[in-house]
Amino acid sequence: MTAGNQSAGLANRVRLRRVGIDTYQQPVIYMHRDCPVCRSEGFEAHSRVRVDGPKGHIIATLNVVANHIVSPEEAGLSEVAWRLLGAEEGDVARLSHPDPLVSLSHVRSKIYGHRLDRDALSAIINDIVAGRFSDVQLSAFLTACAMNRLSFDEIKALTGAMVDAGDRLRWDHHTRVMDKHCIGGLPGNRTTLLVVPIVAAAGLLIPKTSSRAITSPAGTADAMETLAPVDLSPDAMRRVVEREGGCIVWGGSVRLSPADDVMIRVERALDLDSEGQLVASVLSKKIAAGSTNVVIDIPVGSTAKVRTTEQARSLAASLRDVGGAFGLDVRILETDGSQPVGRGIGPALEAHDALAVLRRDHAPADLRERGLALAGEVLELGGAAEAGAGARKAAELLDSGAAWSKMQSICESQGGMRQPPEAPYRKDVLATTSGRVANIDNRRLARIAKLAGAPRAPAAGLLLHSRVGTLVNTGDPLLTIHAEAPGELEYAHHYALANRDALQIQEPV
Amino acid sequence: MTAGNQSAGLANRVRLRRVGIDTYQQPVIYMHRDCPVCRSEGFEAHSRVRVDGPKGHIIATLNVVANHIVSPEEAGLSEVAWRLLGAEEGDVARLSHPDPLVSLSHVRSKIYGHRLDRDALSAIINDIVAGRFSDVQLSAFLTACAMNRLSFDEIKALTGAMVDAGDRLRWDHHTRVMDKHCIGGLPGNRTTLLVVPIVAAAGLLIPKTSSRAITSPAGTADAMETLAPVDLSPDAMRRVVEREGGCIVWGGSVRLSPADDVMIRVERALDLDSEGQLVASVLSKKIAAGSTNVVIDIPVGSTAKVRTTEQARSLAASLRDVGGAFGLDVRILETDGSQPVGRGIGPALEAHDALAVLRRDHAPADLRERGLALAGEVLELGGAAEAGAGARKAAELLDSGAAWSKMQSICESQGGMRQPPEAPYRKDVLATTSGRVANIDNRRLARIAKLAGAPRAPAAGLLLHSRVGTLVNTGDPLLTIHAEAPGELEYAHHYALANRDALQIQEPV
Repeated sequence: MTAGNQSAGLANRVRLRRVGIDTYQQPVIYMHRDCPVCRSEGFEAHSRVRVDGPKGHIIATLNVVANHIVSPEEAGLSEVAWRLLGAEEGDVARLSHPDPLVSLSHVRSKIYGHRLDRDALSAIINDIVAGRFSDVQLSAFLTACAMNRLSFDEIKALTGAMVDAGDRLRWDHHTRVMDKHCIGGLPGNRTTLLVVPIVAAAGLLIPKTSSRAITSPAGTADAMETLAPVDLSPDAMRRVVEREGGCIVWGGSVRLSPADDVMIRVERALDLDSEGQLVASVLSKKIAAGSTNVVIDIPVGSTAKVRTTEQARSLAASLRDVGGAFGLDVRILETDGSQPVGRGIGPALEAHDALAVLRRDHAPADLRERGLALAGEVLELGGAAEAGAGARKAAELLDSGAAWSKMQSICESQGGMRQPPEAPYRKDVLATTSGRVANIDNRRLARIAKLAGAPRAPAAGLLLHSRVGTLVNTGDPLLTIHAEAPGELEYAHHYALANRDALQIQEPV
Repeated sequence: MTAGNQSAGLANRVRLRRVGIDTYQQPVIYMHRDCPVCRSEGFEAHSRVRVDGPKGHIIATLNVVANHIVSPEEAGLSEVAWRLLGAEEGDVARLSHPDPLVSLSHVRSKIYGHRLDRDALSAIINDIVAGRFSDVQLSAFLTACAMNRLSFDEIKALTGAMVDAGDRLRWDHHTRVMDKHCIGGLPGNRTTLLVVPIVAAAGLLIPKTSSRAITSPAGTADAMETLAPVDLSPDAMRRVVEREGGCIVWGGSVRLSPADDVMIRVERALDLDSEGQLVASVLSKKIAAGSTNVVIDIPVGSTAKVRTTEQARSLAASLRDVGGAFGLDVRILETDGSQPVGRGIGPALEAHDALAVLRRDHAPADLRERGLALAGEVLELGGAAEAGAGARKAAELLDSGAAWSKMQSICESQGGMRQPPEAPYRKDVLATTSGRVANIDNRRLARIAKLAGAPRAPAAGLLLHSRVGTLVNTGDPLLTIHAEAPGELEYAHHYALANRDALQIQEPV
């Protein structure tokens, strides 16, 4: 018998209380320093505590409090702890020392250089999804995976474990389910809003789930949300897809590969680029979504996520091979990642760009071109166009108005189309010299848009007036910042002025 | 100009409030979800926030609150954040996005397999001591060090960086400053309480700083505290040492190698044994304490920290070589780590054992023997005994009463000698079979002592009545649990009964 079971048998009972503190994904339990359970169990600040409630159990990190948010007879839970436990006000829970996690011995084994098999990776992923890994433990696992590059077998096992830890969509009666994905890092690259209506207009099935922004100024789901509701239940999503052949909904409501959402946060905090994790992250979402054929856009550029052609080739091979092992046909498109795509950066501004392409009205040429290239690949992969004829077919569907009409139908089916908002506060950043735009820093432009309020404020962001190679004169507007609040406008403007070299202008010789 | 500096120039000011939440070593800032700074800066739960107060700045992790612990015009700080910032009630602070830590790029470099030089390691250690590393980042650093074993040069550089990040004691007019250390994991191994008085009685200088328990049922400072005050200022410590030639004080009040205290917590959470980190941890404390000669006890056993002779040899070589690079003469003693030392486990129970040896009154033979062996090495290393004659000299000093008399003087100088407390609640665990004790699990015995309340309750712990090789009959007491509260007694007893095999009894054939 183990310690955890033992103590659960004793009377370490407390009343639970939701204290309204958002600790993001790390479950925290708040106990008063005079709490008798705290004393008898020898719990101290930062102890890991097992909480057994009426509906299940979680492991939380203890914060000891000496104020009035909890009484000595209660234990407070942070928002995520409350949610994971499925707690309700007045619930009584038993507290105990958690048994050591078996999966942590697998993490240590990886740290000491061993390979992990499917069972070991499943144990780790299941504990991560159940919130049983602390941040410290999550970080050790991700660091070990990045250091001792995952083998093909490990990436395959990890992908499978991540798929199994969540829900899975099934599309019976369809032999091909199309999908597309972009390896991020390129602001404004909102091609999904073009590819889905073009491909659906061609009669193929493309039930697209997209993410919200994590560290970028807009995710596809954020941009789409300015045009139509995206927070659909799995059933509502299915009805849209059956009627229209396609949809663009937020993936968060359908719980595909939930481990990915937890791990991405820690990877971002470390700014780690681990090929194995990236492959498992992308493919597990696609496999769980029931896709059979996927086109993946890899933008390559010095300020994009993938910085060199070699890195892109290696990633492409891994995506193809691991996808193949799950019966997923992966096609890769390497694209230019040297500067943002389209004019707008921010949810509504990017939606405006996509609308301009669909309506063929002042369309940004680069966004149109990339959308057609990607849609063409999907059409070819789905058998709706001959090899080499996909982009032309995509252009026909766009120029005939079929794609625009399909986009309107999809938006109506998702709950009603709406007009993206316009920002009430705007300010230009002017060129202080004349010359040719030599270089654009994607990361700092993204930062300006975020400081202006994107993606939280949907109308916020920036409009970029110059692209690499353009000639500008002193006093020309280089970009216009859009904001929903004057404070945010000032703040983004301030940063933009201090970071003028985010757009490098080379003076003529 | 950077983002951090920029935003510091704007009016993101809030009133600080101490909210009385102990988050251990992880600084947390609590902001109301309606806080205008939170909104204008785009801070979200788990954002890292730079807090500039009147006396300096820190980086804290944001928790967003929807309750009354802070108003939208305030920001709450956790205990460690309040202390690191040196904040006072009513202080106004500026909040901003922190600049990316340069030292994190060194951590990433280590993750990608590169070696780190002294500058890189100093940058990392200084940021750790200043509380600028989140748990996730600390964990990545420690994992990377464990995986890509630190080279000799790296361990040396890390040790130096850890010494420089804290205070340093100097003992002018003394050419030799003696010290001893035990690589932990063996309950009851309280030899410091013997070695210090013996060595000081021989006229050598031994200004000993000791730690409190981290995960064990008693640290040397905890045991010594049941005999005399240990929380001395550096000046008070110096006066004791000048008068008595030795002391046993808590190292926490003299701030030697403070990075170690932060890193140990995360290493324990991961249960990582990294030789390089261990060497840097032990030696940085000794070098900072001004020691010139140190004897290190490495107990080897299957449930001790060091499990094999090979591991012990490798560790010993590394300790000697790195110590030598700093002019520290290191002598290693490999000892038996197969079972606890002495009879008691817990602060007061271990102090009682040491007193029994010093007073030559029912002394546990194994503790006496180990204390004499270690003291003998220190005497030889310090020139107070010929090579090979140290243990005999130590026995003379013990048996003449000189060591006991010196211990009493040291206790009086540290603030007054006291009698260790006795536990009011006790319960035996009896043998349910007869035979020979074949094996003892150090880790589970330590756990029983901790469940009984040690080290928080100084009288708590256990007395072990049987050692490996002893014959026992059914009904004989194997151990007696001591507790200060009846609940804790029950809890420890419950666990002991469920873990009878922590003492394996082999039935006669």
